[in-house]
Amino acid sequence: MSSIEIGNYILARLEQLKVRRMFGVPGDFNLGFLDLVEDHSTVDWVGNCNELNSAYAADGYARVHETSLGVVLTTFGVGELSAINGIAGAFSEIVPVLHIVGVPSTTQQKAKALLHHTLGDGRYDAYTKAAEQFTIAQGHITDKETAAAQIDRVLTECLIKARPVYLTLPTNLVYEKIPADGLEIPLPRAQPANDADAENAALEEIVKIVGGAEVEGGDVVILVDACAIRHDARKEVDALVRKTGFPVYVSPMGKTAVSESYERFGGIYMGSISHPDVKHKVESAKVILSIGSIKSDFNTGNFTYSIPTARAIEFHSDHTKVFHATFPAVGMKQLLPLLTARLQPTTNAVSVPNFNLNAVLPDESNSIISQAWLWPRLSHFFRPHDVIVAETGTSNFGLMEVPMPEGALFVSQMLWGSIGWAVGSTLGAAFAARDLGFGGRTILCIGDGSIQLTVQELSVMLRHGLTPIIFLLNNAGYTIERCIRGPERKYNDISNWKWTKLLEVLGDLDGVESRSYTVKTKAELSALLDTPEFANGKKMQLVEIMMEKQDAPRALKIQTAMGSGSYDF
Amino acid sequence: MSSIEIGNYILARLEQLKVRRMFGVPGDFNLGFLDLVEDHSTVDWVGNCNELNSAYAADGYARVHETSLGVVLTTFGVGELSAINGIAGAFSEIVPVLHIVGVPSTTQQKAKALLHHTLGDGRYDAYTKAAEQFTIAQGHITDKETAAAQIDRVLTECLIKARPVYLTLPTNLVYEKIPADGLEIPLPRAQPANDADAENAALEEIVKIVGGAEVEGGDVVILVDACAIRHDARKEVDALVRKTGFPVYVSPMGKTAVSESYERFGGIYMGSISHPDVKHKVESAKVILSIGSIKSDFNTGNFTYSIPTARAIEFHSDHTKVFHATFPAVGMKQLLPLLTARLQPTTNAVSVPNFNLNAVLPDESNSIISQAWLWPRLSHFFRPHDVIVAETGTSNFGLMEVPMPEGALFVSQMLWGSIGWAVGSTLGAAFAARDLGFGGRTILCIGDGSIQLTVQELSVMLRHGLTPIIFLLNNAGYTIERCIRGPERKYNDISNWKWTKLLEVLGDLDGVESRSYTVKTKAELSALLDTPEFANGKKMQLVEIMMEKQDAPRALKIQTAMGSGSYDF
Repeated sequence: MSSIEIGNYILARLEQLKVRRMFGVPGDFNLGFLDLVEDHSTVDWVGNCNELNSAYAADGYARVHETSLGVVLTTFGVGELSAINGIAGAFSEIVPVLHIVGVPSTTQQKAKALLHHTLGDGRYDAYTKAAEQFTIAQGHITDKETAAAQIDRVLTECLIKARPVYLTLPTNLVYEKIPADGLEIPLPRAQPANDADAENAALEEIVKIVGGAEVEGGDVVILVDACAIRHDARKEVDALVRKTGFPVYVSPMGKTAVSESYERFGGIYMGSISHPDVKHKVESAKVILSIGSIKSDFNTGNFTYSIPTARAIEFHSDHTKVFHATFPAVGMKQLLPLLTARLQPTTNAVSVPNFNLNAVLPDESNSIISQAWLWPRLSHFFRPHDVIVAETGTSNFGLMEVPMPEGALFVSQMLWGSIGWAVGSTLGAAFAARDLGFGGRTILCIGDGSIQLTVQELSVMLRHGLTPIIFLLNNAGYTIERCIRGPERKYNDISNWKWTKLLEVLGDLDGVESRSYTVKTKAELSALLDTPEFANGKKMQLVEIMMEKQDAPRALKIQTAMGSGSYDF
Repeated sequence: MSSIEIGNYILARLEQLKVRRMFGVPGDFNLGFLDLVEDHSTVDWVGNCNELNSAYAADGYARVHETSLGVVLTTFGVGELSAINGIAGAFSEIVPVLHIVGVPSTTQQKAKALLHHTLGDGRYDAYTKAAEQFTIAQGHITDKETAAAQIDRVLTECLIKARPVYLTLPTNLVYEKIPADGLEIPLPRAQPANDADAENAALEEIVKIVGGAEVEGGDVVILVDACAIRHDARKEVDALVRKTGFPVYVSPMGKTAVSESYERFGGIYMGSISHPDVKHKVESAKVILSIGSIKSDFNTGNFTYSIPTARAIEFHSDHTKVFHATFPAVGMKQLLPLLTARLQPTTNAVSVPNFNLNAVLPDESNSIISQAWLWPRLSHFFRPHDVIVAETGTSNFGLMEVPMPEGALFVSQMLWGSIGWAVGSTLGAAFAARDLGFGGRTILCIGDGSIQLTVQELSVMLRHGLTPIIFLLNNAGYTIERCIRGPERKYNDISNWKWTKLLEVLGDLDGVESRSYTVKTKAELSALLDTPEFANGKKMQLVEIMMEKQDAPRALKIQTAMGSGSYDF
């Protein structure tokens, strides 16, 4: 029977799961494991500038490398706690991330030694107690006998539930040998099978309802949200959409779950904030097939969904709702193909709004780069298979309303909404897109306020030869907050930086690996976007776009004018 | 009866406690309170680049503004979790920090609304559960009736126990009016009174033991550690030291608790790592009066203290130990003056090692800036009332062994040891030193690996006209980790940055508010240090010091060569 070091057992599992990158920061309690990572043939170490950025990177990697997971390695206490906001974001947004923490030896843990990185009071369980709030499973490697089971258990949970898990690896067990034969059994990745009777009951009910609506000539629309992506149901949704021909819409968090060049794609539904035509079409439908819905404030136009329960059929990863009836243990991944098989193409030639109209440039008489002009203009710049990362703020609200080409992937963090996330996430996303051979570019849109939180990670992109295009909106501070409160308050101001010298300082010492630009007018930006050398993105590029500090995208203005959500003082 | 808004009640209490700066990052759940902060006449808002840095800044502020506290304001979920490592560090190192978190309205909390910055599952208590691990008290403002009591309770705990506390402030209660008359009663700041009988028993016992040792001609030495600083016992220690004339030593974490220019100051005791003469003097003493001791690994030469319990008298904030006997509820702040009054000047003319010998420059034949040369050289550069901040790593181990002038303050984080901490901490320390009119300079010593974690905070220093001198050790990576493991491993490498252009990029756009330098030889660095314009520190300055990547201070080499602590694989 062959044997393997515990550290290498972890790496072997990650290799099986197609993980190519591990993010993190070295610390004295993880250095032994890092030797194994550095020597591993397929899992490569990406040393980040700090741990929060590494967690964001693992999150971005997992979002783009669908069906795999992101991995972040930190050290005991200081490192893991710095990463915890990134882990919590992955929990909130349903992103599979494994957080490995190098911890003191089992002997030191038992002795409650007063080591550095401890709280000084012997509480060796404090960090785990914090992690329990933000991960769905925790595994502690404490001996050779149970190590493999702990590793396999947390990885399985991570894959099936698509949420972060936590694994502690003590310094003294990294090189302990355990049997390798467990590795021959692949980890289960699928959801448990649906309850057959419940599934059948739900299916018959849905077929009857949809059939009835069709006969009556009523609309049936499909509304796709983030969980369809997170729980690996893209293909199943696509098959349903294409076969039935029902008009299809997405939520903001579901953007690019459905091809936006598909002829029956009608746009973004977000309650009262939706374009009026979209709002009318969705809310007046006889039946709404809602797939993978997450009803958070920003995803629902501040809770203004106007879809009565009596017209909504909801497909979730682990249950189904048909109007007022819930069918537990009936998940969408298995149910949707059965439904697609039973439904016929619609005979109801309902028109859909033309989402491409959102790419029409507004006719503005000045040269100022407005929010209303910028996003449609960028829409024309996007290419198939681009990965487009939007920072929380004007970028997110602006990008969500403009069309993206076939195969483009929109990456945002609308529910968790942690500013600065997009920089780390872009690093992970760019790695995944490169490793998987997407063939498009990785594009980041972010404001000057947000990028300051996590800016150092640009240096890691340079170091690894990644070539994202970064559109940096220089609008002198936290514009999303100015929309909410304090438009002229100093607390929403930030320092202005010399953005075009940033990449040089962060590692492109000779200025040959990157290019930076400042654009102040529509004409300047358009000319740059039309330059093939720029558009082909063979180098890392940063474009500082000068914009007005009070300007905001349409959807953000409406959202914040509604005066509820967080800003009810 | 006059009334006051809850938000202003908090600010009034902070003003009473001499808080001049509040650190943090705006977020939509704290903007209402930020209006009050911005409009307040004595508490000024310092907007940081990110929340971890703001927590570090609050920590640094509290360390320098002794008897006051540090304050950090973040937003719900995303912001507070980003700060949590900084808060945990303040817990570990016994630093009083108030963490205020702007949270959703009480209505939204009760409804468990699916707001942005939530985990998506309605768990509104998750962040508090995490905070409970790293703060000694948590207060939740939930209504007008109990708000003042919650605020007063957590502030009192923070002051008395010198550890972080957590306070949530919902958006809808910031402007609610409550009675202001409670503000007329100052918050209690002192430890509870010692138990009189126990105090007397301990005192008599200690007087008898010390007297006996004196009569027998045995040494009595005083060993001062961090808790003497944290629990406001500097003056009491100084009085004891000066009256008795007993030789006095400090631990690494206790450095500058005692004046290093005092004639009976003998140096740094850290077990086996101590200079042999110091080790012998301390360990052979008949009685050791140990004040405010924290027996962590790095503070004790990796647990190599050789002080038998039968010769140690320990003074702590809330108890006293006389050899094997513990006296609960007998704290040092009140006991030490009683002891000083009872003891007489020693008649035992014991010699003390000459700590100033550590400032002698080694006779090296080359021009390379070695660790052995750098720290003594900087020692000559230090001036009275300088605040000297040491990053965990070679800076900390190097600086702790060299003399610092009268009134200089050494700020380090040896127990928690979170790399990157020193940048944020320097920001807070520089503010406190300026606000209090110290008259010295704020000096940061940090490596190129560490500064990358938190580098953006330099921009906040520039923005506020702070003028720290930053010695940046460019030794191509994580040198402290190379000492522990993987001296040539890639995971200990980092990107090289264009350090001398950094301040320009981070906000000194015209290059007039700061100066940056690179020095490669001993002569270059010495010449710079001797330049009055540089030494007077009227502008922010950054000095990139080129050093060898494997070179390390004496104490660090011995510490890591011991092969225990974290690095026992």
